[in-house]
Amino acid sequence: MKTYGVIMAGGGGTRFWPLSTKAEPKQFLNLSGKESLINETIDRQEGFIRKEDIFIVTNEMQVSLMLARTAGRIGRDHVLAEPAARNTAACIGYAAMEILRKYEDGVMCIFAADHHIRDKAAYTRTMQEAVRTVQKTDALVTIGILPTFPSTGYGYMRHAPKKGQLYHEVEEFVEKPDEETARAYLAAGRYAWNSGMFVWKASTILDYYRKLLPDVYECLARIGDAMGTPEEQEVLHRVYPTIPKISVDYGIMERARGVLMLEGDFGWSDVGSWDTLDSVRKKDARGNIASGDTLLMDTDDCVIYAGEKLIAAVGMKDTVVVEGRNAILVCPVREAQRVKQVVETLEKEGRFDRL
Amino acid sequence: MKTYGVIMAGGGGTRFWPLSTKAEPKQFLNLSGKESLINETIDRQEGFIRKEDIFIVTNEMQVSLMLARTAGRIGRDHVLAEPAARNTAACIGYAAMEILRKYEDGVMCIFAADHHIRDKAAYTRTMQEAVRTVQKTDALVTIGILPTFPSTGYGYMRHAPKKGQLYHEVEEFVEKPDEETARAYLAAGRYAWNSGMFVWKASTILDYYRKLLPDVYECLARIGDAMGTPEEQEVLHRVYPTIPKISVDYGIMERARGVLMLEGDFGWSDVGSWDTLDSVRKKDARGNIASGDTLLMDTDDCVIYAGEKLIAAVGMKDTVVVEGRNAILVCPVREAQRVKQVVETLEKEGRFDRL
Repeated sequence: MKTYGVIMAGGGGTRFWPLSTKAEPKQFLNLSGKESLINETIDRQEGFIRKEDIFIVTNEMQVSLMLARTAGRIGRDHVLAEPAARNTAACIGYAAMEILRKYEDGVMCIFAADHHIRDKAAYTRTMQEAVRTVQKTDALVTIGILPTFPSTGYGYMRHAPKKGQLYHEVEEFVEKPDEETARAYLAAGRYAWNSGMFVWKASTILDYYRKLLPDVYECLARIGDAMGTPEEQEVLHRVYPTIPKISVDYGIMERARGVLMLEGDFGWSDVGSWDTLDSVRKKDARGNIASGDTLLMDTDDCVIYAGEKLIAAVGMKDTVVVEGRNAILVCPVREAQRVKQVVETLEKEGRFDRL
Repeated sequence: MKTYGVIMAGGGGTRFWPLSTKAEPKQFLNLSGKESLINETIDRQEGFIRKEDIFIVTNEMQVSLMLARTAGRIGRDHVLAEPAARNTAACIGYAAMEILRKYEDGVMCIFAADHHIRDKAAYTRTMQEAVRTVQKTDALVTIGILPTFPSTGYGYMRHAPKKGQLYHEVEEFVEKPDEETARAYLAAGRYAWNSGMFVWKASTILDYYRKLLPDVYECLARIGDAMGTPEEQEVLHRVYPTIPKISVDYGIMERARGVLMLEGDFGWSDVGSWDTLDSVRKKDARGNIASGDTLLMDTDDCVIYAGEKLIAAVGMKDTVVVEGRNAILVCPVREAQRVKQVVETLEKEGRFDRL
């Protein structure tokens, strides 16, 4: 049975503004100093998925940029273009339908385009295990990450750990907790981070859609029926924007029986914002993460990303300084999440020259 | 008797790096948001000096930029080009010699190119008074600024205040004091800031050079003898670089008898660095000075100068953020003086692309 990869890469990704912009979303950024997140994601699967079996789902506007930036890794027919953003259930369902109708049923591994994984060998072993299980069963496997700190930035899955078993049943999906709750989760030892990585058969997930998300399924079926016909694009553009907006977590994972959690412990992070950049990039001896042409004097625990200019930081502490193509951000590290407010303000003011 | 203006504008001026650079020294910056410092300096004299009687002394490299930026205010023959920087005694002596040999003796008013004056009317009245006195006497008049705060950034002149008199005798020139000393000076009421503005006759100051700085005078005389001859440039380039380097304060003012201090109270400041910018530019309600395209959220007491990019500052306090053409500076306001160290480091490393 074939193993496919499906990378969800449609995000506008402005959490790394002003480095990430509408024209250059997060997945294209080279935050690690090695490769872009999208190319790292593609290359990371080489141990268990053939490159020609990887699909990328993105939006129409990003297709040509995606092909350019992935530099021959992915063929045009494996870049699926959503006519509209309809949340993850639509996105995954579309990919599953494409696989079933144009290729053959197989194991689908779902990834986000903007995660970082430190230990690739451990990652490959975990994913190989998940693929083996899904090949033999109709399980919906979700990868739960062993938490290493009380993160308030991730969703959690409560599970019942069973000694000697690889897989645990998920009892509950819980939203991002506050700090105190996160500490309690970490101490309890039965909460894992919800990585958003899933493994299942294309046919299995569509069966679940039919049962649990019939409205979504009906749309996908109409799109699937047109696949390979001259009407494919017309139907896709007419129907896709009407697919109910729902996430696969909420629509399927929280409601399906048979969800198995496989524990992952491979240095996963979702590279959420400037304040969590240390997950992808080593700090220097003074706690700084510096990229590009920088000159640091008496500067500690800062994140400094220079673009075409030199950034000279003198006597700075705990501050993010980022030079993008159209804008410069300066804020305390602990307030880096507020970049969202900046982006919202600029959007409200129609300042697209700065986005 | 004619009144001349002599503006000393040769500075490399990197205290406002990265806005000021070697290619764009401080005097060309528009820090006030209205006009460049050099043009403000020229225009400020209109109440008592005719524009065609103003000279600018600068270095050879800056002549064409100077002519372009002063936009017709100053003719080519009134821009004196120093072949080398030899401190202020050489600079002022050269201008005095030029005036005496090519024009006619008259009152010379000496200014720096990068000072700011808030109350132009009061300034004009003070300077008119100085000019009147110098027309009638051989006095060396220096403008002493009534201190308004215990500045550690200026030199001081101790003087003996005499009731009912406009002019005071200078008893001592003192260097930039430490904070405690500066407070004592302010309390004592007999210390004025040394503004570096002087008024005297061209013939008078050259007489003082002959007596007090004979080596400097001898060079200037050789240059003066060649003025108007085909050898003028050749002699200037040969002799000028050999003029002893000494300031007019140290070489003349501290040693001459007959130095009179005229008190000035017209909102003078020398716009020294990013942390004293409030002398030329009003703060907003939150204590920020912002220029260019900026977006400030919960930001207080900052100095934010944007160039071609937007600068978004979120949650910042007491910080300087300046985008120049080739570099960006970020530092606490109270450490703004350390820009000097940055510039020195870049010079040492030969990074002239960033200077």
